[in-house]
Amino acid sequence: MVRKVNLAGAFATFSDTWSPRIAGQVDGYDIKLVRLEGDFVWHKHDDADELFLVIEGQMEIAFRDHTVTLDAGEFLVVPRGVEHKPHAQAECKVMLFERQGLVNTGDAPVSDLTQRAQTRI
Amino acid sequence: MVRKVNLAGAFATFSDTWSPRIAGQVDGYDIKLVRLEGDFVWHKHDDADELFLVIEGQMEIAFRDHTVTLDAGEFLVVPRGVEHKPHAQAECKVMLFERQGLVNTGDAPVSDLTQRAQTRI
Repeated sequence: MVRKVNLAGAFATFSDTWSPRIAGQVDGYDIKLVRLEGDFVWHKHDDADELFLVIEGQMEIAFRDHTVTLDAGEFLVVPRGVEHKPHAQAECKVMLFERQGLVNTGDAPVSDLTQRAQTRI
Repeated sequence: MVRKVNLAGAFATFSDTWSPRIAGQVDGYDIKLVRLEGDFVWHKHDDADELFLVIEGQMEIAFRDHTVTLDAGEFLVVPRGVEHKPHAQAECKVMLFERQGLVNTGDAPVSDLTQRAQTRI
């Protein structure tokens, strides 16, 4: 039986920020849900693009030469190799689409923000 | 410069149904936007999973042994090899995530619904 995922219901199952949950998989790619609030670290993924789709709230993605503000219903693909720093002034709910096993902090030094174990909703 | 995509704005650039537009790419995968209305054909994709995320409206995905109704803010991944038939009673706006080059009608006979040339928004 193929089951659907209700985004609001899935977000309601967790409350911590910067800790993506896996909500589904397409081939070797993960659909992740994450709550963002405050500043993340500058980082890049040398061999993977990364999609951010805002479900609720507003976030910014800083690049070295410009910043993009994303509202609900807007998405952006960070190309591989491009340094970026996500930020959200108030809590923001985001869907990510990225290759399985991608480490959230990319090439940045491992820190409290680094999440290696991925939890499935 | 990395540009964002506003889903409402992107959907406003076309009005035909069952004709996905490519709105972005992640590695070898397409983010497609499609308007659905009425019945599609039974088909499967033998070697590719396919994500349906409803942006606005309601759709159903029939499987041989059950049917799932998807409302806005809900998604479902059709596993590879599983026969399915999308349907929407009224026009429904959907985001798809699938491997580049996937033919929308899968293994079904080529018909007016088959879309091989993919248009980028």
